[in-house]
Amino acid sequence: MIAISLKRDEAPAEERAARQTVAARTIAWKDDRAVTRSDVLAVEEPLEIRLAGCRVAVTMRTPGDDFDLALGFLLTEGIIRSGDDVASIAHCPAEPDEVEGNIVNVNPADPGLVDPERWRRNFYATSSCGICGKASIELIRQQAAPIDSDLRVSSDLLFAGERALRSAQTVFGQTGGLHAAALISREGVLIALREDVGRHNAVDKVIGAMLRDGRLPLRDSVLMVSSRASFEVIQKALVAGVPLVAAMSAPSSLAVELARESGMSLVGFLRSESERGGRFNIYAGSDRIDG
Amino acid sequence: MIAISLKRDEAPAEERAARQTVAARTIAWKDDRAVTRSDVLAVEEPLEIRLAGCRVAVTMRTPGDDFDLALGFLLTEGIIRSGDDVASIAHCPAEPDEVEGNIVNVNPADPGLVDPERWRRNFYATSSCGICGKASIELIRQQAAPIDSDLRVSSDLLFAGERALRSAQTVFGQTGGLHAAALISREGVLIALREDVGRHNAVDKVIGAMLRDGRLPLRDSVLMVSSRASFEVIQKALVAGVPLVAAMSAPSSLAVELARESGMSLVGFLRSESERGGRFNIYAGSDRIDG
Repeated sequence: MIAISLKRDEAPAEERAARQTVAARTIAWKDDRAVTRSDVLAVEEPLEIRLAGCRVAVTMRTPGDDFDLALGFLLTEGIIRSGDDVASIAHCPAEPDEVEGNIVNVNPADPGLVDPERWRRNFYATSSCGICGKASIELIRQQAAPIDSDLRVSSDLLFAGERALRSAQTVFGQTGGLHAAALISREGVLIALREDVGRHNAVDKVIGAMLRDGRLPLRDSVLMVSSRASFEVIQKALVAGVPLVAAMSAPSSLAVELARESGMSLVGFLRSESERGGRFNIYAGSDRIDG
Repeated sequence: MIAISLKRDEAPAEERAARQTVAARTIAWKDDRAVTRSDVLAVEEPLEIRLAGCRVAVTMRTPGDDFDLALGFLLTEGIIRSGDDVASIAHCPAEPDEVEGNIVNVNPADPGLVDPERWRRNFYATSSCGICGKASIELIRQQAAPIDSDLRVSSDLLFAGERALRSAQTVFGQTGGLHAAALISREGVLIALREDVGRHNAVDKVIGAMLRDGRLPLRDSVLMVSSRASFEVIQKALVAGVPLVAAMSAPSSLAVELARESGMSLVGFLRSESERGGRFNIYAGSDRIDG
């Protein structure tokens, strides 16, 4: 069990929403007329993730769900293996000149469980995008077992999930600047939804939330993303055991390759077009999708 | 002057296009009917960027314009200061089990010019997103001078630029998976356009191309991006001296903040809606935009 210090993450929903958006005066130009008005922006701030007090990574993120983001990142980067590796998690007090709440420290349950050499090498190798090329692609395939799930879903469930994601996103749809990731159960229940300026962060937040709840691997869930499906999105889903990823936009070549080799189902360009029906493309694992 | 080994980048346009997309069999589902067809995906592969033989970063990118990407990345990350810092650039031969052409090495003109300690520290600090939080925000503001430009453009130029970007993007619009960045001169000429699965990479490729041509700083140009404007996009534009960034989608809070503090103009949600006219929002530096 993870002992969680809820210093910031216990804030009520309205308060969290207030932290995730900010008002700004802008000039709206339309058909040769300029009007000054107040607009809403998605907040972007750095989050430093520390393990046992040492910096592992800094990511530009939208504040809120920082613990989920830190845990999801550490898991999907292969730095921790499960919630059992985590003793506690807390925000660090801000240093002078720092924004409060932008550093999260994760304390490992057993220092021996977390090999600093391994994750330091891992991090150093991963660089600006979280990947170490060919070597790391091999590495993640060793770390993450192929998908083991008998999940089957209907096209109706995918369309319902897409509508749920779009509808839930309207809370921050005002900014037009947030990506969303959501987990849908095979019964069509929205289990978790997280938003972020970074699409990888949104995925990490969802996976981290499930790790905190002790619900990994996610054998019975569909991961929906409002964005494209990159290699990294599929890699993160694979580590969490997700059998089906559905993206609103296009997948990349390497995303399709990894999904196929891992036994994962991958859907792209998912769009519901009416109360019943719509369209999508299946790029991998079509046997999980029924009519 | 940079001595450039054009091993891969000299490939003709059709050949480059062939490397940037790949065909895949997919199942297209529409209104309860599934049809198997051949689809086109954007290629995503890792590129390792080395300086004097040492790994600086690995980024997931769309192959093509690798030298531009490497040079743009090194410049906008503050690792080199100008083209004068570069003696030569070339792809490394592939090791066994590696994909050919996925490593680029940049040799510095004067080993003393490039301080390995500085860029190694810089890189190590930058982590998974190229940013080191508060400290690095301060750092980049020291490194990059405020914008110095008398550029003024009309709304018509912005709309024409948006149409040019969308039109040029249709070459790869088939995949739906590529971001684009383009430079437009104050006279409305499309100077450079680059596409990539990563939007930061597309910006780095454009800036790197200009560095190779000795055209930095970009005082007379508008940088257009098909995506949102994050802090990193604005930071990269600032290092290159771009006075006006126009994004098709939303800016983040930190992007607006950095643009305002640097004297840069920032436009978002740019969309032409007819032959003449359309809409956009001005978030910073409205004095550069005439009616």
